[in-house]
Amino acid sequence: MYKVGRNSVIYDHVYLTSSGTVCGNKEHNGPLGRYFDKAYEDNYAGCDSWEKSERKMLNDAVEIALAKEGITEHSIDLYIGGDLNNQLACTNYMLKEYSLPYLGVYAACSTLTESILLGGMLLDSNYGNYILCSASSHNATSERQFRYPTEYGGQKPSSLTTTATGCGVALLSTKESYIKLTKATIGKVVDSCITDAQDLGRAMAPACAETLRNHLHDFACKASDYDLILTGDLSTYGSMCFKKMVESYGINLGDNYKDSGMLLYDLEKQNVHAGGSGCGCISLVTLGYVVKNMYEGKLNKVLVIATGALMNPVMVFQNETIPGIAHAIVLERVI
Amino acid sequence: MYKVGRNSVIYDHVYLTSSGTVCGNKEHNGPLGRYFDKAYEDNYAGCDSWEKSERKMLNDAVEIALAKEGITEHSIDLYIGGDLNNQLACTNYMLKEYSLPYLGVYAACSTLTESILLGGMLLDSNYGNYILCSASSHNATSERQFRYPTEYGGQKPSSLTTTATGCGVALLSTKESYIKLTKATIGKVVDSCITDAQDLGRAMAPACAETLRNHLHDFACKASDYDLILTGDLSTYGSMCFKKMVESYGINLGDNYKDSGMLLYDLEKQNVHAGGSGCGCISLVTLGYVVKNMYEGKLNKVLVIATGALMNPVMVFQNETIPGIAHAIVLERVI
Repeated sequence: MYKVGRNSVIYDHVYLTSSGTVCGNKEHNGPLGRYFDKAYEDNYAGCDSWEKSERKMLNDAVEIALAKEGITEHSIDLYIGGDLNNQLACTNYMLKEYSLPYLGVYAACSTLTESILLGGMLLDSNYGNYILCSASSHNATSERQFRYPTEYGGQKPSSLTTTATGCGVALLSTKESYIKLTKATIGKVVDSCITDAQDLGRAMAPACAETLRNHLHDFACKASDYDLILTGDLSTYGSMCFKKMVESYGINLGDNYKDSGMLLYDLEKQNVHAGGSGCGCISLVTLGYVVKNMYEGKLNKVLVIATGALMNPVMVFQNETIPGIAHAIVLERVI
Repeated sequence: MYKVGRNSVIYDHVYLTSSGTVCGNKEHNGPLGRYFDKAYEDNYAGCDSWEKSERKMLNDAVEIALAKEGITEHSIDLYIGGDLNNQLACTNYMLKEYSLPYLGVYAACSTLTESILLGGMLLDSNYGNYILCSASSHNATSERQFRYPTEYGGQKPSSLTTTATGCGVALLSTKESYIKLTKATIGKVVDSCITDAQDLGRAMAPACAETLRNHLHDFACKASDYDLILTGDLSTYGSMCFKKMVESYGINLGDNYKDSGMLLYDLEKQNVHAGGSGCGCISLVTLGYVVKNMYEGKLNKVLVIATGALMNPVMVFQNETIPGIAHAIVLERVI
């Protein structure tokens, strides 16, 4: 690998060898449900707490990713991952089941691309052959932690998104495969100057626009060089805001732009307000929908810009503005 | 760099070029106070919230590390860091002041060594020339978040540690310097089977013992190869537990073993119960005390094993056992 410009990296021989995606019931019933490997019927997935259910989801996704490649944890050199729970608790606790060197990472809903871009950098520097990267979110663990007690039943504004129950595990390898991780752009903290924690789409839009601008600049490329530019999870309001910002930068997004928060659910029928959010949203859409479309030859070159809102409830209570970050990766079909 | 054994890495040309350490009043009045670059007189440091004070501390430490090397943020290729606040909020918010590519990491009180080992891996793979790595904790932000409301004044058991107010910033570079980052061992999640969140020293001891064992195995070396083995923050009870565990593994620690939680404060006079803890504790001791002793030639080869307890309060309320992790780095004086 080598560094390009101020923020980016080109990979030499890193492949997305397999992936595992597990989702909740609502995500399974959404327009992309058929792309995910496994679905649970309810928030508990047979466990006695939501947190245990999120850990089970991660565990299942890891096993699915390993089984697709026909390997066990003993072949894995490193695990990189995180989730929305305070102190990454679900990822930490899930890993009690394994004996794997582990680096915890956090970039809010941009955690999946942070994991993958970092995993790629280490594999490309000869740190082993296989690295597992993950991100997860669970509607019930997140809603309780970031918003109101779930029993409260507070009214939701139209700008509020729905935290997806879902997780994605990417198995990266140096072994040649259909999908290659070719490039990445590391995000910066960008202050949105927004204080409304019920409008996180718009709070993340400036960071997303900044990362796209940096990416196109570092690689001297155009948005139209990609079959798909997938952001997420900006959802309806954030997505509109992002489009306006990049237009003001003179970037023409063309027709190939989509947001994972608007793809995961049926926005008209599923009562999700502004769309989907949470680490699980972009993880399911990227490692389920995008990856399967790449295998089928329907997509060849995809830029995934995952976006994260970097506040916590204490910062919101203290009337601080909400900063965002966005880490981008490029996946290309090479065989 | 290259991978060694199952968990470790050898660096080729990564140096600890400079460091910045900022502490609170209690840490300044402790036995190591004179080793830190800057101290605040109270928990607020002139700010109107504890969180702003922690951000100020980080900001000051970054500026000190940059000033020592005579560079500005424009020379920095990447920032890697995290803190104990939910969602790494203080590190995230501090970085609004800069325009730096940023990777958030979390390993509880082992965050500093995770940042440094990762920064070293990227520099050694030609990702730029300078990487800033940080970790911080603040007694008041942490006590409120992890334990009781600070006004509650609950009694503390002797096993409870005192979260340090402090932060350390390491400036890593490929440019030759006095102190070289030579090796690292990545930690694994190890379940302590302890449920008492007021006894985190003992909860982290098994992970610390596991990392030491893996380190000595991967590099086929002995504890006596080091001038100092610094753990932290196990403090009194955890440290005793760690010593017993490594003895049972047949490892002879010798006289060169110390724990940062027992060095930072005067355990008899400062009313800190089992000692110091928090990301700030090992960060201050490593980047203040150890680094200055290395510059003065009093220490030549130091193994730092930072330890983290990976629970959050929700997991504790749910009666889950507490897992730990420990990431190790080796610093050597080379000029």
